[in-house]
Amino acid sequence: MSPIEDRLEIQDLYYYCAHLIDSGQGIRCPEEIFTADAVVNYGGAADMVGRKVLLQAFGAIPKTLEATSHNITNITVRVDGDFATGVARVIGWHWLQVNRHLGPNRPVDFLQVAGYADEFRREQGRWWIAKRVVHALGPGNTGLGVGVPPSWPSAAPHWREIRWPF
Amino acid sequence: MSPIEDRLEIQDLYYYCAHLIDSGQGIRCPEEIFTADAVVNYGGAADMVGRKVLLQAFGAIPKTLEATSHNITNITVRVDGDFATGVARVIGWHWLQVNRHLGPNRPVDFLQVAGYADEFRREQGRWWIAKRVVHALGPGNTGLGVGVPPSWPSAAPHWREIRWPF
Amino acid sequence: MSPIEDRLEIQDLYYYCAHLIDSGQGIRCPEEIFTADAVVNYGGAADMVGRKVLLQAFGAIPKTLEATSHNITNITVRVDGDFATGVARVIGWHWLQVNRHLGPNRPVDFLQVAGYADEFRREQGRWWIAKRVVHALGPGNTGLGVGVPPSWPSAAPHWREIRWPF
Repeated sequence: MSPIEDRLEIQDLYYYCAHLIDSGQGIRCPEEIFTADAVVNYGGAADMVGRKVLLQAFGAIPKTLEATSHNITNITVRVDGDFATGVARVIGWHWLQVNRHLGPNRPVDFLQVAGYADEFRREQGRWWIAKRVVHALGPGNTGLGVGVPPSWPSAAPHWREIRWPF
Repeated sequence: MSPIEDRLEIQDLYYYCAHLIDSGQGIRCPEEIFTADAVVNYGGAADMVGRKVLLQAFGAIPKTLEATSHNITNITVRVDGDFATGVARVIGWHWLQVNRHLGPNRPVDFLQVAGYADEFRREQGRWWIAKRVVHALGPGNTGLGVGVPPSWPSAAPHWREIRWPF
Repeated sequence: MSPIEDRLEIQDLYYYCAHLIDSGQGIRCPEEIFTADAVVNYGGAADMVGRKVLLQAFGAIPKTLEATSHNITNITVRVDGDFATGVARVIGWHWLQVNRHLGPNRPVDFLQVAGYADEFRREQGRWWIAKRVVHALGPGNTGLGVGVPPSWPSAAPHWREIRWPF
């Protein structure tokens, strides 16, 4: 089995990434979570590559979303030296800015039920996400609400296509 | 405390079981997840016993369900030699085949909020589920949507009746 | 990194607390989960301090709620000797007593999407919650349903205000 310390450190990385986004600090993610050459695809037609592009993407989140909660479950990690692969699920609660006038205690606007297929690298003595691809876990990846908003990337491959890490 | 390696291996077994079902490979569960003499009850009047019966049950899933996501939380495991007990929660998102015509980005059709009370055995150097009983965590075990569909087993005992593993 | 045994013991404490509440044994929480001088705030105007006050609060739960499921995710813990800090998320499913006549297989009445910012102390050889503050993870902390019921505390600070444990 993979070294337990590495598995827990990668687990914490999943949670810290969610923490930054959900506490309104998503623009810190490119520098603190992802490698300089990270490849990320949240369901768009093309991959996002590198911190500059990611910064643009994370910076745009608050324009669309008033609040989010990324509840991460089912984290499975396999470590191989300074490289690791992982899969995990996210239950992503999204409240839209356009519905802000409806007040704070309104139901979620849309819920994403999806999965992450990830690659990690150890650099400078700690772990980073080197690759992340979001996969749909429903027929699409919506659990509740308005479905995928018009501006949302929606070409995510299905969970059926992930490679299990061990 | 139980050996950490065993706890994590059993945690991975929970996630791998969810992975197989949610990636459309549920028919692999009887051979890869459960012992040959496994006893399983998802809320039916009678227990399902053994791989042949489980294969029938897992094989029938795609007839009813277009897609699922089993998000597993609150895994608590106690290991005693080659035997272990565990409890866990599942947030089970279910999209029905009968609603497939409504398109991929529709809300979930029904959501199961339930718990597992499990027994594990170590055989051939790895862990397997030897017994699984699903317990309701709401008044029934529905969180959203159409409730328990007519064909669904619905006699699950309540979470109040589980025995905490330690 | 923090000692792994301590991290897992604290993780189990999160789950055991959820188990007691969801299995109708919430009145056991003050004695079994919290230190004698514990400070707890679930979003009320004033902190609850000590076991006597907590017993009153936990004892009142069944008057309002027919059933609950507290699904805990994203547990991050930092241990420093006999003191620890932790943050975690809860997806809290709540079925109200006033809707009991609608039957067992009804959708959830309201869903809380929130976070815990916690402090733990080791006493008598085990870990206890010494402080818990609930934080909202949406615009309020409602994911679904009727929103925060009239009698519910609703002054929870936002997740933006937590201090990450490491």
